[in-house]
Amino acid sequence: MTHVFDEATAVQKVDARDGHVVRATTHPAYNNMVGPFGGITAATVVRSLMDHPDALGEPLALTINYAAPIADGEWDLDLVVIRTNRTNQHWTFTIDQNEKTVATGTAVFGVRRDTWADTEQSAPTAPPVEDVPAVDFPDFIAWAANYDTRFVVGGLDSASDDSTSTLWLRDEPARPLDYPALTSMTDAFFPRVFLRKGTYLPAGTISLTTYFHATNEELAAQGSDPVLATARGARFGNGHFDQYGQIWGGDVLLATTHQLVYYKDAA
Amino acid sequence: MTHVFDEATAVQKVDARDGHVVRATTHPAYNNMVGPFGGITAATVVRSLMDHPDALGEPLALTINYAAPIADGEWDLDLVVIRTNRTNQHWTFTIDQNEKTVATGTAVFGVRRDTWADTEQSAPTAPPVEDVPAVDFPDFIAWAANYDTRFVVGGLDSASDDSTSTLWLRDEPARPLDYPALTSMTDAFFPRVFLRKGTYLPAGTISLTTYFHATNEELAAQGSDPVLATARGARFGNGHFDQYGQIWGGDVLLATTHQLVYYKDAA
Repeated sequence: MTHVFDEATAVQKVDARDGHVVRATTHPAYNNMVGPFGGITAATVVRSLMDHPDALGEPLALTINYAAPIADGEWDLDLVVIRTNRTNQHWTFTIDQNEKTVATGTAVFGVRRDTWADTEQSAPTAPPVEDVPAVDFPDFIAWAANYDTRFVVGGLDSASDDSTSTLWLRDEPARPLDYPALTSMTDAFFPRVFLRKGTYLPAGTISLTTYFHATNEELAAQGSDPVLATARGARFGNGHFDQYGQIWGGDVLLATTHQLVYYKDAA
Repeated sequence: MTHVFDEATAVQKVDARDGHVVRATTHPAYNNMVGPFGGITAATVVRSLMDHPDALGEPLALTINYAAPIADGEWDLDLVVIRTNRTNQHWTFTIDQNEKTVATGTAVFGVRRDTWADTEQSAPTAPPVEDVPAVDFPDFIAWAANYDTRFVVGGLDSASDDSTSTLWLRDEPARPLDYPALTSMTDAFFPRVFLRKGTYLPAGTISLTTYFHATNEELAAQGSDPVLATARGARFGNGHFDQYGQIWGGDVLLATTHQLVYYKDAA
């Protein structure tokens, strides 16, 4: 049986423009308030890059800029290899729908080499996942139903002066972690302004950047266990805020992420 | 008299491909170990976008991926408006030299609107700039001579288990802060692995993302005063590390930044 995440990130080949283009289809299970959840779009890009016959190594970095909402239905992803070096590879991509560009971005793939290593920062402290209750999101955030989400701090139950959320997170139903699923998780924090204001507001990611620290071996070891995810904003104002986050699997820092988010004050 | 930063970021118009292309020239004052300092390249992109007749508002976000070293001499910058919305605008860009692409990236511009605002995080504590000695960098890091750099913590005088550097930083000679200069400063942290290992190593930025929080009014108020810059890595390993940084002007968070850096162990 195919997991809903794999259904939602599947693409077909389209024989156009030298085979750069693949075609995806929005999946209702990952709908957001306006258009699809950005994390599933980003995950589809990463999966398509990994499946590309010219891909070198594994994902190292992804930036995706959401220029306009994606409408329900098909969208085309044009993947272009810009340069392949000895140990890394640079990509650009464009998402078009109805002959208009709705997203653009860049990716870096690479070969992981054995070097001096240290994880300098530590995972946030958290009680065991089974001691933290799972939460439900409102129906208009459809995608959240595909995650088992347990807030250690910073759930959306009241306003807070601290925009930090730390949460246990895993796919629901459980699914072994891979780079596409990890990509999606780096966009799974609700907008920090909701937590500061204690309410939903019109808000959306403009630009998301994720760095993939996890090796294939670390992803395999993580399996379908929940990750511990944490994110915080630094400055809110003039219609935008930033959000920096980390995704941990035990004491393994799987990914770091930074995003710029648009918001409007509540009417 | 033209400041060396303005000389280094100047471009000429080139009448090619619908006027998308401008031509820059590397400046010896901003040389790095291999090719130019990445910050000056990023600053040239931001300046060129701001000078573009179609630009909407001011810079909000920049991602630049350094795919190959830029050689001394001219390079061409192709700027493409992907989409202009009511309050923001999406760009992609490509840097070519000798008919090969050496860098790519994306930018978001936008109009700052009056909204609820809060700077949630605080600047690091630091003694006054005049109580901190300025440092000299070795001659092979030419660009550093264009900054007055004073380390509060994390100078490159010994190895440290903590990769945090916090420093007072301003252009040398002093120059009023603007978005291009701020862009460059977000890449002015030496690679965090130098601090961890207590020595120079082969290392270079692969991907840099900067979010611009400062308004024009805040930049004007900052003038040519030094900023307080801070950066830290989270995980080092497999030939790469991340670095997250903030640039403060007094209690104003001017920019946040995240970069992925390649490194090799010393031979």
